[in-house]
This record gives sequence, structure tokens and C-alpha cells, in this order.
Amino acid sequence: MIRVGIIGATGYTGEKLIEILVGHPQVRISYLSGKIDKKENITHLFPKLSGKLSLDCDNYDAAKSKTSADVFFLAVPHTVAMHIAPDLLKAGKIVIDLSADYRFKDAETYKTWYKVAHADKANLKQAVYGLPEFHRQDIKTAKLIANPGCYPTAALLSLAPIVVSGSIDLSSIIIDAKSGLTGAGRKAALDFFFSEVNENLKAYKVNSHQHMPEIEQKISSLAQKTIKVNFIPHLIPMNRGILETIYLKVKKKIDEKDIHQIYKRFYKIEPFVRVVKQGMLPQIKDVIDTNFCDIGVHYSKEKKLLVVVAAIDNLMKGAAGQAVQNMNIILKCKEDTGLL
Amino acid sequence: MIRVGIIGATGYTGEKLIEILVGHPQVRISYLSGKIDKKENITHLFPKLSGKLSLDCDNYDAAKSKTSADVFFLAVPHTVAMHIAPDLLKAGKIVIDLSADYRFKDAETYKTWYKVAHADKANLKQAVYGLPEFHRQDIKTAKLIANPGCYPTAALLSLAPIVVSGSIDLSSIIIDAKSGLTGAGRKAALDFFFSEVNENLKAYKVNSHQHMPEIEQKISSLAQKTIKVNFIPHLIPMNRGILETIYLKVKKKIDEKDIHQIYKRFYKIEPFVRVVKQGMLPQIKDVIDTNFCDIGVHYSKEKKLLVVVAAIDNLMKGAAGQAVQNMNIILKCKEDTGLL
Amino acid sequence: MIRVGIIGATGYTGEKLIEILVGHPQVRISYLSGKIDKKENITHLFPKLSGKLSLDCDNYDAAKSKTSADVFFLAVPHTVAMHIAPDLLKAGKIVIDLSADYRFKDAETYKTWYKVAHADKANLKQAVYGLPEFHRQDIKTAKLIANPGCYPTAALLSLAPIVVSGSIDLSSIIIDAKSGLTGAGRKAALDFFFSEVNENLKAYKVNSHQHMPEIEQKISSLAQKTIKVNFIPHLIPMNRGILETIYLKVKKKIDEKDIHQIYKRFYKIEPFVRVVKQGMLPQIKDVIDTNFCDIGVHYSKEKKLLVVVAAIDNLMKGAAGQAVQNMNIILKCKEDTGLL
Amino acid sequence: MIRVGIIGATGYTGEKLIEILVGHPQVRISYLSGKIDKKENITHLFPKLSGKLSLDCDNYDAAKSKTSADVFFLAVPHTVAMHIAPDLLKAGKIVIDLSADYRFKDAETYKTWYKVAHADKANLKQAVYGLPEFHRQDIKTAKLIANPGCYPTAALLSLAPIVVSGSIDLSSIIIDAKSGLTGAGRKAALDFFFSEVNENLKAYKVNSHQHMPEIEQKISSLAQKTIKVNFIPHLIPMNRGILETIYLKVKKKIDEKDIHQIYKRFYKIEPFVRVVKQGMLPQIKDVIDTNFCDIGVHYSKEKKLLVVVAAIDNLMKGAAGQAVQNMNIILKCKEDTGLL
Repeated sequence: MIRVGIIGATGYTGEKLIEILVGHPQVRISYLSGKIDKKENITHLFPKLSGKLSLDCDNYDAAKSKTSADVFFLAVPHTVAMHIAPDLLKAGKIVIDLSADYRFKDAETYKTWYKVAHADKANLKQAVYGLPEFHRQDIKTAKLIANPGCYPTAALLSLAPIVVSGSIDLSSIIIDAKSGLTGAGRKAALDFFFSEVNENLKAYKVNSHQHMPEIEQKISSLAQKTIKVNFIPHLIPMNRGILETIYLKVKKKIDEKDIHQIYKRFYKIEPFVRVVKQGMLPQIKDVIDTNFCDIGVHYSKEKKLLVVVAAIDNLMKGAAGQAVQNMNIILKCKEDTGLL
Repeated sequence: MIRVGIIGATGYTGEKLIEILVGHPQVRISYLSGKIDKKENITHLFPKLSGKLSLDCDNYDAAKSKTSADVFFLAVPHTVAMHIAPDLLKAGKIVIDLSADYRFKDAETYKTWYKVAHADKANLKQAVYGLPEFHRQDIKTAKLIANPGCYPTAALLSLAPIVVSGSIDLSSIIIDAKSGLTGAGRKAALDFFFSEVNENLKAYKVNSHQHMPEIEQKISSLAQKTIKVNFIPHLIPMNRGILETIYLKVKKKIDEKDIHQIYKRFYKIEPFVRVVKQGMLPQIKDVIDTNFCDIGVHYSKEKKLLVVVAAIDNLMKGAAGQAVQNMNIILKCKEDTGLL
Repeated sequence: MIRVGIIGATGYTGEKLIEILVGHPQVRISYLSGKIDKKENITHLFPKLSGKLSLDCDNYDAAKSKTSADVFFLAVPHTVAMHIAPDLLKAGKIVIDLSADYRFKDAETYKTWYKVAHADKANLKQAVYGLPEFHRQDIKTAKLIANPGCYPTAALLSLAPIVVSGSIDLSSIIIDAKSGLTGAGRKAALDFFFSEVNENLKAYKVNSHQHMPEIEQKISSLAQKTIKVNFIPHLIPMNRGILETIYLKVKKKIDEKDIHQIYKRFYKIEPFVRVVKQGMLPQIKDVIDTNFCDIGVHYSKEKKLLVVVAAIDNLMKGAAGQAVQNMNIILKCKEDTGLL
Repeated sequence: MIRVGIIGATGYTGEKLIEILVGHPQVRISYLSGKIDKKENITHLFPKLSGKLSLDCDNYDAAKSKTSADVFFLAVPHTVAMHIAPDLLKAGKIVIDLSADYRFKDAETYKTWYKVAHADKANLKQAVYGLPEFHRQDIKTAKLIANPGCYPTAALLSLAPIVVSGSIDLSSIIIDAKSGLTGAGRKAALDFFFSEVNENLKAYKVNSHQHMPEIEQKISSLAQKTIKVNFIPHLIPMNRGILETIYLKVKKKIDEKDIHQIYKRFYKIEPFVRVVKQGMLPQIKDVIDTNFCDIGVHYSKEKKLLVVVAAIDNLMKGAAGQAVQNMNIILKCKEDTGLL
């Protein structure tokens, strides 16, 4: 049994990591830390886990963590992970970082969007962007995984096949994203008080969300040219799930059937991407509590508008599920272990 | 006191009409009908109205209705209104139809989208599209009002100023619309069972919703040229409200400030359109239970993408509120009577 | 036009007070204060009010408030009101306090439940408990109103008729209360983060909620003997509304019909209490956005259990609506002015 | 691998059974039927299952079913199961019925509450009530399981320890139950339209719900005397979960600590009942998607009122999860297989 540690166990992502890993037959959770007042059994913090896991959770202790586990998940806020990872890597640990700290190859882009200078440029280079559908080979031997953001996961999986196919006008990409509230992280903020969100709906950070440059960097890298996207997120009164409705201008003569085939072929062997039947579109409830990303396409030939719709569970394929998928690849477990 | 009748009083729109009109100082509800099993006091159907209105509601009776009221609201399903309106008009009544039956000038378009031949072509010509911001003069003397659809109301108010300004590429219009469930009407359908909708989210009728041609007809008429739009509605787990995020390609050199001014000027004297402050965007909770349409703009100059966001209460400005606004104009009441 | 001021305008109760008073034909809002960073127009804080009210809101200023209005609503937290009221009363103002500060006749009970010594014992005596159904005569001449708590309003209106009738075992009272989230007040707390509340349900403060002694004091006073109640509140994932299911052991030979009559007679002339038809029970959606308290009864003769169900909107009859009802009585306006 | 069939696979319970059994290492789903228009792959009905199970679902076919599986789950409506079970039993199959058809020992009680004469009195006698905490020994050798109702599961587990202890007044039992909407079953009814339920709350079937006699029969049998209970269910705007707040009059001198111990001891070895820490109470979110029943107690010594709160997921411990637990016992699998 491989020993795994979760640093930042008290947020929504940490909680979901525990829930998945507790049922994983080849690993054992051996270390938990979180920003808490005093050491407590995790079942006191999450009564839900009672009868499943009994382990103390304390504030992060660098020395103790290193002797306690071999693989670490960092479910800490941005700007925190880059202060924890170097030490663990030096000790030969495998680090899967769910924050944004290692997602950009370029430290300057990080500084522009996250407002602090990067504190661990040395490890930026070796970090592998943990989207298995694009980087499975590199993940196999990675020591440091930059687990993708929730919005970018759905966006990149939706865009890749059609961008690579050369069928669309690359200057026309519009991503209208809709997310449930756990995507915001468990925090005490007036904006997220139940009655401020329930029976409400709004757009926020229009073309200025920090996940936009993450999408741009990866899709540009894939297409081998600089691509800019329009990214407009909305908050939806539900707990979990992201639905992205993506608008693309088609520049080639092509049918919906062809486009559907492009997607089917692209994800033929992927265990966690489901291209839904032609004529259908994904919905949130089909992916909740799963690690799947469901993708559907609709093409209005007359208007030359391609609509790609993708649905994921933001805590699963959008965070903890994908992190475990990455771990499975590194540990050479079957890729879907613990995830079905 | 002018006597008003509501035909189709038992749906969400009918219920909201009663709630508004009961507080209107210049009219008195004198006739109610709905598709029901047997005659009942309206307070038995809607206990909410107890202590506010005591009036029987029965199945529609053409003869009785005509002697009971002077102004009629038709809150019946599409294809029903066109069989009721002719008789009322002949009797000299004023008819405000909240269904789609008189919204298209062209009976063929109606047939294409609503799948039945139009049964009252004679009155199609005299029907006035009841969007006061565009047609106030014609409404003043109208006998038959075609009250706009909920989605088109928000879309047309959002598009008009910028389309008329000549600043955008008219082939690029994309409307990503998000609606609460009362927009679907009160009906017993498995798709609208609470748990099918709650914690779920999906797009539906992509570029094939019957409100799309309504938007196209009116915006084309306004711009004096044929305009096609992309219209993609989504169902959101909330009771009320529509938020439309509209994407437009700007073709002129222009600043966000200029665009904001275009909207401010266009709606300067309108009592029910609020252009929110530059830098802000509307949200559903600010318009719920009001007849306002809130509009905000965001322009990404580098990407040439204009995002216009509009919010309305689908039962108010999107249906019953706007119908009463139309009635006020016809009856020469102050336009906001009963609506503030 | 009488000038009214709202101190604590930025909470849910303050916001609702503004919404009601803006439409009240006999008063004018002339002063607003709240705990805010800097003076701002109220429409910046609540865009919803744009086009309805344009007035600055600043931090509370004792001197300025006194020259600005004649009637004051205190929508401030408990323990704050008792430091503001004395000064206003001394200046001859009418004060309607929506906090708990003047609800207990006995300063010791206040200290026990609110954990601070009462700072204004002098005015405790003259405060009138603002439940019009019980204290209308005293309210007419009151200078200081202690507006009832939301839970106690529904509980007292439900209990009074049957307690006074002498039909029940007074030691058996159980109140199972269910409240939406605005009842908790607008605050930044992790427990009220959307996803902690949505799709969740729990009991809290079982037999230890501060509204329990308020119910006990008033029902005891009404019955002229000491009565203890069991009070078990629950948080429900909805914005507004309180439903209380009250369990009572009947000790007399009596029929459901008789009990229903007791309630009908008791509230015969009340404008804001509706006893629903026998065989029916109230539901939240019939009282939302109204000042009504709906009450229904169900009696299982065999089991001798009487179930009384009451529904109110916690922000209306449970707070702001009732406060305006009290103001109307004091100002000799029609009692339902602004409330229908 | 044992072959299992699900009859009535298209409801919420059937869907949940599939989700659980698909991950069960010792069985294989080999037969699915439901009331549908035409034979379809289950992934067309539930896209969620895509990639997990590919099997046709058709209308029930008695002959085909018998050759296809060895264990059958009947997730059909009440009154349907008793027409299907006899044939399967005759063929030597094991039948786990999730409807109410075999829950009453007495066919007359069934008729009183379900309004039809029982059609299979012969098998009523051999049916074992599938609450493992009470009947594990009988379940081991059962051929026909009457899987308990959702409300009775939580009620019986809450009542048993304290009723057996002899500490309470048996005439005082009040169960205030609160359920999410999946408990109502997937059906097209106006009452369950999203906007009729959302932001609403009501009591229904007060002391007249068909689960009341089920609770009474089983608790009476356990206590060896006739016990009547008061059962008042409420509909809560959430998808899943039941919370029952149970009120009991204590007649002995006893402390909360003692009562807590009674519960701890009673469920000491139970894998799926968790008695929460003294001072805590269960909440819905801790049991969602689990087969646990969480129970907490609160005792107001002065008022002699014991409050027992229980939480379950109505689709898991309240239906499908418990059914699989029963199957595990019969098949001699570890009892929690597929359920953790």
C-alpha cells in the first residue's frame, strides 16, 4: 500500500480527495493537514467520514509530513503550494498540486494573474500539466503535477479536437461557463451567503478570470500558435458541476456529423471523456460524482456556428478526481482505479 | 374603475397578472377563467390571494366574458388565443395577448414555428407588438397587443441600441440565455420534476427555440435589414428570472465608455430600462418582482468582443408586468401604475 | 408626509423595510444608516432600488439622525439598539426596534439569553411588544415598540387561541420550526456558505434558542400562568419563510371543527391572520412577500394530538412587515397601508 | 458472479440500484426492465451510466426474466410487485421487493392503506422485513425480502433502543419527518413541478401517511405491545435525504448521557448505524450517498422531552442501499460490499 498525504484536507477539494482515496485499493491515507485551530480527528471535522477513516488532521508540519507519506496532494490555496512543494520534492516525494502555482510555464504570467512573484521558479520547468488526455506520457514519469483548473479542464477538452482539426476561426472562441458554488471554495464571504446566491444568477470576471490565461497557454501550445479566447464565467445556484457552452465560427465546409466524428475519434481510447450521441447535449446531472467529462456538439450550418457543450463535476474531473487519475498513471495503477 | 378580465388565470402568468392588477388603483378584476374541473373561487386555487380578491374562476365562457369586462388579458397557451381574440375584438374589447399568436406579422412564420396554420389572419395586421420602448405610439391606440415573449424582451432591449448604432458585425450575434423554471409554464412534465432540474443545468433547443424568429423579426425590422441571431437557451435551477449574456463582434473603433453612453442615451426616458453603471453588470436578484430590465455592457477592446448582459423577471417585464405596462399606456394611466 | 429613518439599512431586514416604505403613501424615507466603509447612495448598495429611491446611507450619526426623521426603525443587531434608542426617545422620536433589546420585561432574562447586561433598563418598562393581534391598544400610544422575533410571531399567533381556550395540556407544547436562510441575517459565515446549506437540513439550538424564552414570556402572560415550551428550530435550504408545526396534547373532548372555529373566531377581525379552510394546511409560498400569517389545524381525535401549522414570511410578518404594521397603528394610517 | 435483475429500472430507486450494483464485485446485472415505450440500451435512458453498463432495458417479460437472473430487485410501484413476485419465487429466485407489497403481515392492513386487496397472501407469511438491524438472522435464509420504506427505516432505527429500554411514555411518540423530493418517486405531477416545490415547504398527509402503519406494526412487534405513533411528513426543497425529528416524553429519571449510552450499545456492532457524539446532531449532508443512518439524541431534563434526530439518504439506506445490504446478507457477501 502506498502512503498518501493530503495537505489542505479541510476544503471541498481536500474532502473529496479523502472520499475518493479512502476507497482506493492500492493506497492508504497516512497524513492529513489543514488550517485548523487544533489537532482533531478528521471525523470531527467531517462526520461524514465516520466509520470510513480515523486519522488526525493537524496544521501542516514539514518534518512530520515527509516521514508520513510518499505521495502528496496539495489542496491548499494558490501562493501557498509553491512554498510547500520544493521541500517535498527534495525529499523525493511525488507532489500533485491542485492549486494554480505550477500551471504556467512562465513565471511572469503567473505574477500578472496571481499578483505575487513566483517563489519556486526552479521547479516550474519540471512540472507537468496534469491533463492526462494531452500529457499522459509525461505524467507517467512526473515528480510534480500541476493539476488543471476546473474551468480549463472542460474548456481544453472541448476545444482541442476542433482546434487541431483546423476547421475553426481561431479568433472567434467564446466560452460561456456556468459553475456551481463549490467551485468558489469553502469560504466565509458575504457574496456566498446562501440567500445571496440562491434564486440569483450573474456573470463575473468577464474576460478577466485567472483561468483564461491557463486555457490560452495550453490551447496555444497544442495548436502551435498564439490563441486568445473569450472567457465569461457565471455563478449558478447549485452545489456542483460546470457546464461550458462554447461558441466557435466554422470556416470550412463541414457537416455536424463530421464534427461529431472528429470528437469521437479524438477521444476514442480515453476512459474519462464521453462524446455524447449526435443530436444530444450533456447535462450536469450525468457527470455529478463521476470523473467523466461529457462533450456534445451542435452545428448550425447556415449560421456557421458550432456550439460545443461540456459538463464536468468541478470537484471530480475538475479537481480531486483528475488528481487521482494522475496519481494512478504515476503509480502505474489502472487509470480508473477508485474512480468508477 | 375599468373592468379587466383574465382568460387563463391559473398559470404562472395568470397568477402574476392577478397579483399586479389587484393592487392597481384604476382597474378592477371582474372576470377570471381557466382550464379547471369546476367553478371555484380563485382563493381556493391560489390561497395566496385570500383576503385580496374573492372572485369565481370558471372555464372560459365567450358570452359571459364579454358582458363582464372591457379589457382582456389572454394568458392561454399558444394556438388557443387566436380562437378567443376575434370574438372579443368584434365586441369592441381591448385584447392583450400574452401568447405568441399575434407576434409574427407573417402567418407563414407562425406556422413554421408553432406547427399550426394561423386561424385569425385578419387581426394579425392590426396587432401591435407590445414592447413599449419601441412601439409606444402604436400601443396608445391599439386594440390588440401581442405581448412579447420573455426571452425576446431581454434580447431586443439589449440589442437595439448597439444594432442601431451601426457598430457591430450583424452576422456575429450570439445570445446565451439562462432562464428559471416558471418560464416553462406550470405543467405536469417529468422533465420539470423538482429533482430533474435541481442541481442540474443544460442547454436546450439550441438555435431552434421558437423565440429566435421572434427576436430576428423585430431586430430586423428595427435595423431595416435581415438579421439572423444565434439563440441558445439554458434551464437554471431557480424559480424566476432570465439572464442573457449576449456576444457581439465590434467592427468600429470605439471604447466601452462610448458604448455605455449609447445605451444610456437610448433608454434615457424609459421608466423600466435601467442601464447599470459602467463597470457593473446586472444580476437576477435586482430585478425579481420588478418590471425593470437591467442592462450592462463589457467591452474587451483587444478582442473586439462586446458582452451585453440583461436581466429581467420573466413573469414581470417578461410577461405580466409588461402586459400591464401596455394596458396602462392604452388606458392613459401613468405608465408605471401598479408596477412600482 | 412623515419622515422615517432606518438605522441598520444594509441587512435583509433593513433592505425589506426600504422596499415597503418606498411604496407607502404617507411616509417618506429621509434617513438611512448602516455599518459601511464610506457614505454611499443606497442604490450603489442595493442596485435593486435604482429608480425607486436615491438617498445617501452613512454610518450612524446620532446628531444628524435626530434632525432628519420623526419615526425610526432600528434594524441593528441585538445589544446595539439599546445604545441608540434612549437618545432618540429623549428627542421625542418614535422608535420601532426590530432587535431583541426591548422584548423582555425582565432585564435579567435578557442577560441570561443575550449574554450582556441590559444598558437601558429605564425604557424597558415603556416598551410595547409589537404584536398587534395582542397589543393593538397599547401600540396606538407607544413611543417604543419591541418588534417581535420571527419565530415567536408565528408561534404566539398559533398558540394563543387554543391556550386561551383551556383545551390543551400546557406542559405538552412542542414547536418544530423550519426557517429559510434570511432568518439568520446577512453575514459572512462558513456555516451559511451556499453549499453548506443547499441540499442539507439540520436542527440547531434544540431547546436553547433565544426565541424560546420570548415565546414563553408572552404566552405565559397571555394565559396568566407560567408556561414552558419546547422549541426546536431547523434550517431549510430556501431564502425566505418560516413554517412551524406545533404539537399539542388535547385534554378536552372536542372536535377538529370546534378547534377550527376557535381559531376563526379569535382572528375574525384581524387583517393579517388567515385561518385556512378546515382540511387544509398553510404552505410557505402562499405567504411569501405578504404580511399574512396563515394558520391551519389538524386534530387526530383518537391520538388526542392537535397539530397547528403556521406560515409566515420571516422578513414581512416576521420582521419588516410587522414593524410597518406597528408604525401604521401609531401614525393612525389604515393598518394595511403599504402592506397589500 | 451472481446474476441480478432489476425490474422497474427507470425510477430513482432503480437508477440508484444500478449505480450501486455496477460497482459490486460479486454480482453482475443481467436483466433490466421498466415501463418504457420500446427496448432501449440503459445508457440511452440514463446517459450517466455510459461507460459503466451497456445492457438493454425492456418492458417486463416474465419468461425472459427468469432465465436471465438469480436475484431480483422489484423497484416497481406498490400493487405491481405482488403480481410479479409469486412467479419468480416459484422459479426459485430470490426476490427483494422495494415496494410496500410485502411489508405488512396482515393483508387487511395492506388493503386499508393501499386501497386494493392483496393479491399474494400466500407469500406474505414468508416475507422477511428487510431491516438488517432487527432481522439479520431471518434475512440470511429469506427468499422474499420486504425492503422497508424510507421513512420507517429512519423512524424504527431511532425508536427501537429507547422503546425497548422502557424509558418513555409510549403514547407520546411524535415523528416530524422532512424529506427531499426523490422520496416522491420520479413522476410527472403538477405538485412536483420545480417551482411549486422550490422556495416552498409544507406538511402533508398529517397522521395519514401509509408509512405510519408500517412504523406502528414493526415498533409494536419489537416492544411486544400495540404502539401508535404520530407521523407528520414534510416536503423539503432538496433532492435527497430524510431528517426525522422525533419527540418523546421520558418517564424515568435518566440523563442524556445514559440515553446516549443506550443508543451506542444498541448499535455497537452495526455497520450502518452511526450514533453521533453526545452534544451533536446528525445532518443530511453527512449521509448523502452513503448507506448510513446517523442518529443523535438531545434530552431536556427539566421538560422531560427527549429529541431523537435521524438522518438517512432516502435512496440509499431508505431504499436501494438497504436492498443491497439485504442481498449481501443473503448471498453471504461481506455486508458492506459495494456500499462503502
